Amino acid sequence: ETGDRAAGRRKATSCQGCHGLDGKSQVPEAPNLAGQVENYLVKALSEFRDGTRKNDAMSIVAPSLSDKDIADLAAYYSSIEIDIIPAEQ
Amino acid sequence: ETGDRAAGRRKATSCQGCHGLDGKSQVPEAPNLAGQVENYLVKALSEFRDGTRKNDAMSIVAPSLSDKDIADLAAYYSSIEIDIIPAEQ
Repeated sequence: ETGDRAAGRRKATSCQGCHGLDGKSQVPEAPNLAGQVENYLVKALSEFRDGTRKNDAMSIVAPSLSDKDIADLAAYYSSIEIDIIPAEQ
Repeated sequence: ETGDRAAGRRKATSCQGCHGLDGKSQVPEAPNLAGQVENYLVKALSEFRDGTRKNDAMSIVAPSLSDKDIADLAAYYSSIEIDIIPAEQ
């Protein structure tokens, strides 16, 4: 199921409360999603949906996601560009 | 337990095979860790250690981590600077 980035961006409006539309965490313990590995996001969302992975918030929102929603959201957040600035030492 | 960034950097040499010393994922499905939320990293590592969260690789490496290791690794990877470049649309 290949994700549609633009569709994912619209769906991400439901995620922005915790994760930000730009993928920058808005609340303590919610991870940044910007530029995250696409397969990792698909796997995480699928595990929250089928219950192999549990989290207070995600276990509530994930069960209503379709495979397409998951693919679109993963495509969107993974497409956000990040620059990693290695520390000097 | 406050983490020691420099100690975390030394310990991260064991993580770099999958996660990179700069926190950029080196293998499919391994997430980027650069600039990730510190508490999220502590929680993830603790859950892999006590088994509430499972992953082929992490369930093998995490059980040997001490609280200090977890705090140091979380301090290190979260300290890596990232810039998020929001897409135009």
